[in-house]
Amino acid sequence: MQAVWLENQQITLRQVPEPTVPGEALIRIRQAGICGTDLELVKGYYPYTGIPGHEFVGEVVAAEDPAWIGARVVGEINVVCGRCAACQSGRRSHCEHRTVLGIVNRHGTFAEYTTLPLANLHRVPDTVPDEMAVFTEPLAAALEIQEQVAIHPTDRVLLIGAGRLGQLIAQTLALTGCDLHVLARHPGQKERLAARGIPVLSAETLPLRCWDVVVEATGSADGFHLARQAVRPRGTLVLKSTYKGELTINASALVVDEITLVGSRCGPFAAALRLLEARRVDPTPLIVDVLPLSRALEAMERAAQPGMLKVLLRMV
Amino acid sequence: MQAVWLENQQITLRQVPEPTVPGEALIRIRQAGICGTDLELVKGYYPYTGIPGHEFVGEVVAAEDPAWIGARVVGEINVVCGRCAACQSGRRSHCEHRTVLGIVNRHGTFAEYTTLPLANLHRVPDTVPDEMAVFTEPLAAALEIQEQVAIHPTDRVLLIGAGRLGQLIAQTLALTGCDLHVLARHPGQKERLAARGIPVLSAETLPLRCWDVVVEATGSADGFHLARQAVRPRGTLVLKSTYKGELTINASALVVDEITLVGSRCGPFAAALRLLEARRVDPTPLIVDVLPLSRALEAMERAAQPGMLKVLLRMV
Repeated sequence: MQAVWLENQQITLRQVPEPTVPGEALIRIRQAGICGTDLELVKGYYPYTGIPGHEFVGEVVAAEDPAWIGARVVGEINVVCGRCAACQSGRRSHCEHRTVLGIVNRHGTFAEYTTLPLANLHRVPDTVPDEMAVFTEPLAAALEIQEQVAIHPTDRVLLIGAGRLGQLIAQTLALTGCDLHVLARHPGQKERLAARGIPVLSAETLPLRCWDVVVEATGSADGFHLARQAVRPRGTLVLKSTYKGELTINASALVVDEITLVGSRCGPFAAALRLLEARRVDPTPLIVDVLPLSRALEAMERAAQPGMLKVLLRMV
Repeated sequence: MQAVWLENQQITLRQVPEPTVPGEALIRIRQAGICGTDLELVKGYYPYTGIPGHEFVGEVVAAEDPAWIGARVVGEINVVCGRCAACQSGRRSHCEHRTVLGIVNRHGTFAEYTTLPLANLHRVPDTVPDEMAVFTEPLAAALEIQEQVAIHPTDRVLLIGAGRLGQLIAQTLALTGCDLHVLARHPGQKERLAARGIPVLSAETLPLRCWDVVVEATGSADGFHLARQAVRPRGTLVLKSTYKGELTINASALVVDEITLVGSRCGPFAAALRLLEARRVDPTPLIVDVLPLSRALEAMERAAQPGMLKVLLRMV
């Protein structure tokens, strides 16, 4: 089958054997989304060799349980042991022996086929089209913020960064009825927020030390330091993006201001699908291009441009 | 009156005028405790000129409301405006215009007298002797952890650091019934924990990535990095001490492990006094020396020795 291959920070398009993993379902990928993490992997954020990609919607073509064959599905990206302390405590996405689709020791979704255990799959409701369903994984990641931090209608909430993930976070934070503002830089990002009635701020006029909750979604040191200035004493700062290199922080100031810093990663798929089905969120305006798998390298290059929103790969 | 004076990181004992602040109560200090923050101020952690010290028990000798005269009191250290957003939201210790006893723009307690607004004072129950009451401020700070983080009986909790503040934290965490272990280094620290039945660990045999809650009370980069290794994914790391300089952290790992970092400072005085009155905690075994104010410089030098627990100043 055709697949994107990442090795030594080089990506190529090549023919590889179709995957077969005993006990796992074989899934024909229909669409896959390009995420910031994929682009970071290419830059060497984490050593990875193999097929990248972890956002997808596909169709089960082989499985031990025949009831799944033909099902249109999305899939949770952490494949877990089920036996370690984290798994047995209900923190399955933190399994100490996990592999992660297209990220850690497991081939991903920039290919014609992938495999996952049936336990990872969720059926996509018929009324949710592929171009929505392909956003289930990042939408679930956005929802993880509300799984971790109680957001109240009276809270002033600032989101820093309105890129691919930031736009989804803006939509999910808005669901809470909080007083939400978003710091956005690029015109295309601002337009999409404005279209949903979400107020946009710029760094120059940003009020500081007054936000109850600040979500940092840029993954840059500048974004972190601005978030730190923006959050009020005894407020909460959510880190929703991975960072290249290390951050230098004034830990004494964190103590004096009694700040809570929350790292946030993967989230609940079922809730994401339910919100897509109900059209409570709509990721489709984020799509700027849909390219066939054969043009995946061009698609990844495009996705890496500043301010770029979602570029999808289409396999069928 | 006699007072310790800090200026340009030099401490001296000198005669200064008795304080008079309109609208504030005049308090004769009976005992004052030497805290790590006082020693850090001398090292220049924060620029401060004046009388240091913020832990005390004293007696009101002048006040607008005569009902307070003669009362034995302890005092909250943040003097607030009552009008800013933080004050009006109930976060008075984060008042943007606050002065802080012996720390920020307000003379402290290493002197014969100090002043505070009556609103800051708490009467000490008769059954709580001076040498207990003088611990009210750090005991309240220890309790702040439980104000911020829910500690469950099923939680495995690790405290790193068993110094002056650490010993109090150990006692207050133990109240929760959690599965508490303390990383202690010095024999005197270990003995006092053992006397209360609190299990002690050493860094060499410390289990990693398994603690639900880790409290870092050393204020050192080494302590922080050990705490980070010890806490489990999706666990909570409480920073309970100020740090000299900046900390370098791997923010991506915080995100991937979904760690919550909580800065923690001043806490509830009334609860601290209630627990002292009920003898649910007992800080007196921490006292290693009580010296008269005239020997304050020697007392501060003594308090700065590694592994040293509480040195008190006695004024009456």
